[in-house]
Amino acid sequence: MTGAELAGFLQRDFPEVAGDFALEGEGEALALRLLVQARHLRPGGTVSGPSIFGLADVAFYLALLSRIGPVALAVTTGASIDFMRKPVAGRDLIARPRILKLGRVLAVGDVLIWSEGADEPVARASLTYSIPPR
Amino acid sequence: MTGAELAGFLQRDFPEVAGDFALEGEGEALALRLLVQARHLRPGGTVSGPSIFGLADVAFYLALLSRIGPVALAVTTGASIDFMRKPVAGRDLIARPRILKLGRVLAVGDVLIWSEGADEPVARASLTYSIPPR
Amino acid sequence: MTGAELAGFLQRDFPEVAGDFALEGEGEALALRLLVQARHLRPGGTVSGPSIFGLADVAFYLALLSRIGPVALAVTTGASIDFMRKPVAGRDLIARPRILKLGRVLAVGDVLIWSEGADEPVARASLTYSIPPR
Amino acid sequence: MTGAELAGFLQRDFPEVAGDFALEGEGEALALRLLVQARHLRPGGTVSGPSIFGLADVAFYLALLSRIGPVALAVTTGASIDFMRKPVAGRDLIARPRILKLGRVLAVGDVLIWSEGADEPVARASLTYSIPPR
Repeated sequence: MTGAELAGFLQRDFPEVAGDFALEGEGEALALRLLVQARHLRPGGTVSGPSIFGLADVAFYLALLSRIGPVALAVTTGASIDFMRKPVAGRDLIARPRILKLGRVLAVGDVLIWSEGADEPVARASLTYSIPPR
Repeated sequence: MTGAELAGFLQRDFPEVAGDFALEGEGEALALRLLVQARHLRPGGTVSGPSIFGLADVAFYLALLSRIGPVALAVTTGASIDFMRKPVAGRDLIARPRILKLGRVLAVGDVLIWSEGADEPVARASLTYSIPPR
Repeated sequence: MTGAELAGFLQRDFPEVAGDFALEGEGEALALRLLVQARHLRPGGTVSGPSIFGLADVAFYLALLSRIGPVALAVTTGASIDFMRKPVAGRDLIARPRILKLGRVLAVGDVLIWSEGADEPVARASLTYSIPPR
Repeated sequence: MTGAELAGFLQRDFPEVAGDFALEGEGEALALRLLVQARHLRPGGTVSGPSIFGLADVAFYLALLSRIGPVALAVTTGASIDFMRKPVAGRDLIARPRILKLGRVLAVGDVLIWSEGADEPVARASLTYSIPPR
């Protein structure tokens, strides 16, 4: 799927979260931006762990769909995440997903997340998705 | 901290999420209920991955505070989660945290999560928290 | 499979590691002992990370076989491990596995590992196995 | 530390495993080769999970030492690993570590592992090390 097709899919199938995100690039260069808003923050102005987890999860999901097409029922079966640095206050977060394995029933990959414009990543995550039989 | 003290802390220091949760029990028997609402759901009526992650994270955080007192700045440094079953539609989720190590700078433990009344868990998570110097 | 059947399977199908381990109990009470020897140690007398990982992996594998029978081709697809304390010098390690999900194609569970006789665990691991079609 | 210094450190401080590995490159290009031998294999000729885990662990440890010097007491506190493909029979494994965070007390990074000459990775791992106070 192209970037425009992915954005349309997100808007249509996940309307409750689509407003949190903006897609940038496509294919190998696909990135997902979390449009950081008050509801994503925790005391001290940091982005909450679940918001960062959700960014990683959606970024990888879109990378997967860009390869296999609009399979709404692919689901996360496992994830591991390291929170490495405090996000920079007042900046969006950018996630860059990478697919390492695309099998018949499982897909595995990882995601790096940065505060926009920062040199060093805020978080890394690895994810496994289960792909339903067609 | 007692259950009532933890509930007060959550209300005061995390007002943006306190309404999502209800504390049950205390000490070793502490459990945290996610009061599942429309904003936690994904297509098909399932509870979203980030909502389940957030439940595990807050449950372990409260278990930690019940041992070390109200240290608002303890932060999650790593987490690993397995999503094992689809939550039962229309039911709350119940998280039961367990602290396995409480060190000077790191705490480690895990959390099991069930749909209320179900026999088999929906998810498991392990978490590591960094405890700031006093 | 009973404990005796599992021990026989380990001896026959995994002769290269069978001498490292001793099975104790069966069913829900199954435990696996790592007979700690010089080749498992690192400088300072601690048991090496890969040895602890291997103990967790084999313990969960045997717990799985005890439920599904001698499926030699079940393979680990993912694992997450926390090393929490230094093992007690000169003692065996005991692993207690727990199966949390036994699906058609995936099994998920966790393992706690103690130095023999110690109160607090050395390590925890969660594992996912892929089960081949029959 | 240079590649030669790391190889010397490994030989001197970890003689029990040094013979399993060969260092290639240094700095950002550091790679570690597992010289696959009969003792690393499982039935079917595949490299065992603990051997792959050990390769990831040592590769990241050496990458860390190349940055902070010969700190023998840095220890793994957590790891997450995905086994994605069966290694190619009869080939060495090559691990490429990447440090994502080098803090005062914790280092975090990941490792990709390939069968020599293969295009797609066999495994990925993320690791956290605790760095002792100087």
